[in-house]
Amino acid sequence: MATHFEVTERTRLRRRPARGAYDEASVFAILDAGLIAHVGYTEGGAPRVIATAYWREGRTLYWHGAAGSQALRAQAGGIPVCVTVSHLDGLVLGRSGFAHSVLYRSVMAFGNTREVESREEKRSAMDNFLERLYPGRTREIRPVRDAELDMIAVIALPIDEASAKIRGGGVNEKEEDLAAPGWAGIIPVETRLCAVYTDERVAGVAVAASVGAYAEGAALGAVLVRNARLNGA
Amino acid sequence: MATHFEVTERTRLRRRPARGAYDEASVFAILDAGLIAHVGYTEGGAPRVIATAYWREGRTLYWHGAAGSQALRAQAGGIPVCVTVSHLDGLVLGRSGFAHSVLYRSVMAFGNTREVESREEKRSAMDNFLERLYPGRTREIRPVRDAELDMIAVIALPIDEASAKIRGGGVNEKEEDLAAPGWAGIIPVETRLCAVYTDERVAGVAVAASVGAYAEGAALGAVLVRNARLNGA
Repeated sequence: MATHFEVTERTRLRRRPARGAYDEASVFAILDAGLIAHVGYTEGGAPRVIATAYWREGRTLYWHGAAGSQALRAQAGGIPVCVTVSHLDGLVLGRSGFAHSVLYRSVMAFGNTREVESREEKRSAMDNFLERLYPGRTREIRPVRDAELDMIAVIALPIDEASAKIRGGGVNEKEEDLAAPGWAGIIPVETRLCAVYTDERVAGVAVAASVGAYAEGAALGAVLVRNARLNGA
Repeated sequence: MATHFEVTERTRLRRRPARGAYDEASVFAILDAGLIAHVGYTEGGAPRVIATAYWREGRTLYWHGAAGSQALRAQAGGIPVCVTVSHLDGLVLGRSGFAHSVLYRSVMAFGNTREVESREEKRSAMDNFLERLYPGRTREIRPVRDAELDMIAVIALPIDEASAKIRGGGVNEKEEDLAAPGWAGIIPVETRLCAVYTDERVAGVAVAASVGAYAEGAALGAVLVRNARLNGA
């Protein structure tokens, strides 16, 4: 099994190639640290981008929604999509407008969608999603019902091509600006968890063990990656 | 001047219409709280979604990049795009798989791009972007040079159609699940600023006044909205 995605015309980073990566480890790390993907497709000849929760199993991405959703009905037919996941890591300020930038990690993944059609496969996919987010959750709640499965559509995207793009590092200033007065620096940004709160209708019940890793102040991305690894992702 | 975006076939929320909003205040609040947009367009007949920093002036979105960028060259020609901005606000867990969800705010904006071509308009746009992020920043650094302006492309998107979609609230469980054992609740998520750090090459210089609002622990979205308002957005 190849551990790199093939570099193609549309995934090859032409500018600043050092920021690109095509190995599974880099691509998966960025995908697994995210919860919301932006799925681009063409509908009625026009581009459309939906934000949706997603998860990954091997080289396949999944998302789901209401069976009647216009977006999912379009995708169920099997269409080319581009899925982009991005994480903002910081703001960069230099001593010229040009040296201002942002720190980020992102992945673009291309492929053709397919609908997950059988109830068995849908049930398995949705259980995997729950377990991937909250290890053990499926054993804490009742099984999903057939009627519930029938109300949703699950879309799978076998990834044909993918690339990661990472802007890390510090401030990149031109030599001539280094002697200029003024300040330059970085403002790191993190997406963190707040204190879990219990729904008022379950007062008196201990917080579920499956959310144990979602500790107040923890970085969301780190928790998601940890839980993905627990599920063998 | 209309204060609502016209509801069109492609922006009307068919499912859960109560989660939709079309007024400028709702749409702008979500756009102004963001820094990274996902821009979808069609290139060579296939969908493509790029993550890019953006800003808003009135009903126009802007983004920029290297003049040689393939994406920006395609967009400079004037093409239909869909720009989606989303904010994750929390994870929702209920006592059935079905009752699991996420809290989010998102905007989809549609229109046709145009390139900002003259140096004057580019200079003004880029200065506006800096001021929008860091009020006063353009007076702290040297002016942008013509040669620098020539190295970038600035894309403007006059928004023709837009809608906001907001999933707030709490856990939505079915009546029959309310009596079930187990836990239900919410894990709020916030994107916050870490401590600003100064580039080692400017040691001894005070942190710029223009980043004053970027206080450690502050919510990024709130700071961005505040600074946008200072700039009359």
